[in-house]
Amino acid sequence: MYNDNTTAELEEVMAKAVSAFHQYKTYSLAQRATFMRTIAKEIEALGDELIQTAMAETNLPEARLVGERGRTMFQLNNYAAAAEQGNWLEASIDTAVPTNTPPKPDLRKMLIPLGPVVVFGASNFPFAYSTAGGDTACAFAAGCPVIVKAHPAHAKTSTLMASAILTAATKCNMPDGIFSHVYGAGFEVGEYLAKHDAVKAIGFTGSFGGGKALFDWANQRKNPIPVFAEMGSVNPVFILPEKVATESESLAKQMAGSITLGMGQFCTNPGLIIAIDTDGLERFIQHLKREIKTAVPAKMLHQGIAANYAEKLAKALAQKGVQVVSQTDEEVEDGKGLITLATTNGKTFLQNPTLHQEVFGPYSLIIQCADEKELLAVAKAIEGQLTATLMATPNDIRAHQELLNYIQDICGRFIFNNVPTGVDVSLPMHHGGPYPASTDSRFTSVGADGIKRFARPLSYQNWDDEFLPEELKNGNPLNIWRTVNNELTRDQIS
Amino acid sequence: MYNDNTTAELEEVMAKAVSAFHQYKTYSLAQRATFMRTIAKEIEALGDELIQTAMAETNLPEARLVGERGRTMFQLNNYAAAAEQGNWLEASIDTAVPTNTPPKPDLRKMLIPLGPVVVFGASNFPFAYSTAGGDTACAFAAGCPVIVKAHPAHAKTSTLMASAILTAATKCNMPDGIFSHVYGAGFEVGEYLAKHDAVKAIGFTGSFGGGKALFDWANQRKNPIPVFAEMGSVNPVFILPEKVATESESLAKQMAGSITLGMGQFCTNPGLIIAIDTDGLERFIQHLKREIKTAVPAKMLHQGIAANYAEKLAKALAQKGVQVVSQTDEEVEDGKGLITLATTNGKTFLQNPTLHQEVFGPYSLIIQCADEKELLAVAKAIEGQLTATLMATPNDIRAHQELLNYIQDICGRFIFNNVPTGVDVSLPMHHGGPYPASTDSRFTSVGADGIKRFARPLSYQNWDDEFLPEELKNGNPLNIWRTVNNELTRDQIS
Repeated sequence: MYNDNTTAELEEVMAKAVSAFHQYKTYSLAQRATFMRTIAKEIEALGDELIQTAMAETNLPEARLVGERGRTMFQLNNYAAAAEQGNWLEASIDTAVPTNTPPKPDLRKMLIPLGPVVVFGASNFPFAYSTAGGDTACAFAAGCPVIVKAHPAHAKTSTLMASAILTAATKCNMPDGIFSHVYGAGFEVGEYLAKHDAVKAIGFTGSFGGGKALFDWANQRKNPIPVFAEMGSVNPVFILPEKVATESESLAKQMAGSITLGMGQFCTNPGLIIAIDTDGLERFIQHLKREIKTAVPAKMLHQGIAANYAEKLAKALAQKGVQVVSQTDEEVEDGKGLITLATTNGKTFLQNPTLHQEVFGPYSLIIQCADEKELLAVAKAIEGQLTATLMATPNDIRAHQELLNYIQDICGRFIFNNVPTGVDVSLPMHHGGPYPASTDSRFTSVGADGIKRFARPLSYQNWDDEFLPEELKNGNPLNIWRTVNNELTRDQIS
Repeated sequence: MYNDNTTAELEEVMAKAVSAFHQYKTYSLAQRATFMRTIAKEIEALGDELIQTAMAETNLPEARLVGERGRTMFQLNNYAAAAEQGNWLEASIDTAVPTNTPPKPDLRKMLIPLGPVVVFGASNFPFAYSTAGGDTACAFAAGCPVIVKAHPAHAKTSTLMASAILTAATKCNMPDGIFSHVYGAGFEVGEYLAKHDAVKAIGFTGSFGGGKALFDWANQRKNPIPVFAEMGSVNPVFILPEKVATESESLAKQMAGSITLGMGQFCTNPGLIIAIDTDGLERFIQHLKREIKTAVPAKMLHQGIAANYAEKLAKALAQKGVQVVSQTDEEVEDGKGLITLATTNGKTFLQNPTLHQEVFGPYSLIIQCADEKELLAVAKAIEGQLTATLMATPNDIRAHQELLNYIQDICGRFIFNNVPTGVDVSLPMHHGGPYPASTDSRFTSVGADGIKRFARPLSYQNWDDEFLPEELKNGNPLNIWRTVNNELTRDQIS
């Protein structure tokens, strides 16, 4: 239905993007914000056609897609507000001190856009982390044109979203080339873009294999560029002894809800549950076993994800020392996912790297550790994660300071007595984490700080006020927060 | 004199660094700042021995070294103050809204340290960008232990500086392993460290070859790590027609001072001067010719740099279409550098990539462009730079908006009617720039924002106030600026 773009077409796309960049980067923060808010309105204006198209392409239920559309619009409006507020610019100014030896010059710094950004969306969020999703919104906020490669699993949905962006671009008099939408069923188009000299950054959400390929291509360029790839996670949940002894049933209900939410097709799905083998844990397992047995399986996003889940699940369960605790009672067929809970001991987990890998779907593995020492060893052995969760009482925390110290080092978000699923769109959200959860633990793909992935500081030395950008002028006409001579202020400079 | 460390020794160094990290990261900002200020005092306490040692190892004159020692101490104190002030933490808090659908959790985010950092210092700044230099200061401020590989060209100076750091560590009760100093005459020790699993980031100042090797090793690891390599620059100076017509003599004096400062051995040395061929430019060239002829050459840093300069200079001057305008009159021998000014036309420059490369030393090439169009083409052809300079009148600026737009894209610091040499240590300083000036244009190696190279965000979700770090507690006991529910404030949360 959608043919791969030819090289000639991609060259034209990139030439337009470069030209658009040199105009768009001079647009005011308010103009960028208006453009983003208009995209949100145009998405709404797509109406039911968008929802029906995505339902047909992804098997996602209507309510979920309506919710995700709301999230997508919220992101655009939220990052537009952040862009306009200007705190992300990190504007700083030191005024001149000509009497210093050597004379101290007037120096003013702010973030400026990197250039054209290529976005590769996620299969599991056809709206919020795809064509008009978080990466695109962040790039527009930063001042960058965007080229989206449509996800082959929802190319029609992507095309609709692209039309909303292009309509908004026309309404807001954006330069030609501010946004382009390209197709490629295989990896060739993506590789071509990742290696294109005019591309200055990449945003990606998806598998480790896809993210790693982009990261390697980008680093091997003559001029390497930053890639922010969010590559999933197993999101370990550590349950401490007093907590599980006192709340085994409610914990089991909470965990079952998180494991089965959206058929486990979230990058924050809790794939590992780690605890010391106690009577309390045994009760928790029995409660969770019942919850899983009675959980209702649903169709997975598409046939490819269902097949991938079945394969990865079979491989995980075939590992020596892994026992199935419980699987859903209902017969599973036709693209549905088999909700599964398994268990193993700490020693087995420590010896078998296969058990550390993500099984994308409604599956969780309980690791029963022999003692505190083994619990700590498991925490140290786990790779970088988007999230880690601690289920604990205050007494548990006080007794496990060393464990907490190590868990911090492996995650981007550390959750206390709560579940990892549910990623709030807000400034304090960090959705990233040490490798391999993401390619650079210093950046996030959710929340307005994600804008900073696509911007870099530029210092202006000794410029007359007339020629400085609005953000750095003495009069502070945009009334933004700036660090002036080391103090945060919105004051003018006299 | 200093033997390469053995693999067994390096393993011990890294084991200690990991252990130190897990203690040091829990130390307060005030403790980190005290440690850094104590290092500055211990450097001062080294007294004249430090200066004499560096003079013997580097050929740098006493006054320059005394100045650089002051800069080094200033950096430690300045970054200590920034660390304690806490703005760099980017603390942000959204309080819970349980009535939202879904309920909005309490989320609090701040930067935490990455882990052990390996620092490779610069040959041209034996104090300020070496053992106790900017990278080390930033890493300590961030909460990271540091391993410094002594620069082979000033290993004795480095060892003295290391002793000052270790004395300060003892006085401040820092954990064993907070700082280690290792030796390696070749690249093997550096490669071993760059590939070591316990190393979490690298800071480097030096040549493109060295920085690129570290960048590649770091990206090819099982767990890639960030490398900030500052790899030098040719620092183009664009001189516009009205400016050169009216101020040719003073411009020539200014440029001569910058070209010959420190025998051109600064990463911000102006290696290219770019202008349209006019009568004004001709007068400027004649003035600059005289300045260069009468400039007094001095010994270069060491024999290796002198030899490298001679070789690169000969290669640059041997290129077709390059003419020597002027060289210093004085006979040059015994490790001194031949101060040289050459010229070429825009067409030759555009066709020959060799002329785009840095010649590290007191050399500058004037590019005489045929017209505005060629000037713009030259600006577009130049690679990423630490700095770009514009010499212009207000009329010139108004007539060259497109040129300014392009120059911005190739530099990290954009200077107006001033020289690129002289890098102020302050928050608004950006010392980095698009590749190949640095490996990541989003970070700086000078100024307190350099701390962020070695830190990453961590979100805390749903934690009781008792167990949050001081920086994020409701009461704001450190009185730091935080973004609370999207507004910057130092207020407590009730």
